[in-house]
Amino acid sequence: MVQGARILKQLIKEVPDFPKPGVSFKDISPLLRSPSALREICDTFEKKVNLSEIELIAGIESRGFILGMLLATHFGKGFIPLRKAGKLPPPVCQKSYSLEYGAATLECQPGQGKILIIDDVLATGGTLQAAIALAQQAGYEVVDVAVLINLKFLNKMKFSDREIISLIEYT
Amino acid sequence: MVQGARILKQLIKEVPDFPKPGVSFKDISPLLRSPSALREICDTFEKKVNLSEIELIAGIESRGFILGMLLATHFGKGFIPLRKAGKLPPPVCQKSYSLEYGAATLECQPGQGKILIIDDVLATGGTLQAAIALAQQAGYEVVDVAVLINLKFLNKMKFSDREIISLIEYT
Repeated sequence: MVQGARILKQLIKEVPDFPKPGVSFKDISPLLRSPSALREICDTFEKKVNLSEIELIAGIESRGFILGMLLATHFGKGFIPLRKAGKLPPPVCQKSYSLEYGAATLECQPGQGKILIIDDVLATGGTLQAAIALAQQAGYEVVDVAVLINLKFLNKMKFSDREIISLIEYT
Repeated sequence: MVQGARILKQLIKEVPDFPKPGVSFKDISPLLRSPSALREICDTFEKKVNLSEIELIAGIESRGFILGMLLATHFGKGFIPLRKAGKLPPPVCQKSYSLEYGAATLECQPGQGKILIIDDVLATGGTLQAAIALAQQAGYEVVDVAVLINLKFLNKMKFSDREIISLIEYT
């Protein structure tokens, strides 16, 4: 990890046994409170993503909205919400996927353009994989996929040849 | 409404009978896709809120996250999420409130500072009123409260002497 990422990691608070026993929750609240940390996130992503190609930032509900709008505003891009089922008015495209317990569905309105998809955390990868498939189905070209935090020890999904860009890693 | 607000309103798509019959949904997606509309939102809020006093922007989950992070990034402030119950790790403060059908709970971590609370839409006012009480209970000083869209014909709550700042109004 680069220096900036090390400083950001120090601002993340690990909360043991939340939301359930055995899980160490990564609380990004202290980082979000800090304007200089938010700028550092933007500066670090700037070196990693193809900003000149990207037209729109797609954020996954709901913490992906926070990261997505941070990048959209800082870099002067538009924003697309990838939402939980039933929130967006029609017409919508839809993609269901499995969770550890049960299933979930993401929705997005059809559209065009080159996009970056962003979420806060990459764990097993199920949500991100569904988000990529959904965005493509909706008509978008997915140029880059990024997360703030990559929990590498939980990654299960394959993303073909696609690299998932991340700032902070836990191995 | 000022000129900027008129242009923004033209970008909002009214969707009849969503999410249920008789309701005209205000879809802000076209506005979020437009970098110039996002800048216009920031410029218009800049004239209406006490930016020099405000240290942190508090966004209400989940579309308030989008608006909150837009303002936090544009004006170089920190961000606080006011979340649905069970999402934030402890310690949290909590405030329950009534909805048209049933009830809901907002949570926020304790903290200090002068804040602006923002959400996308003011309807009856229940969520916003709970958010103000919650933030105060958590230790924050609520300097301003703002929404992108004020559905004035639905407003039911009293906000004491507090003015709810809004950009776009439906009467």
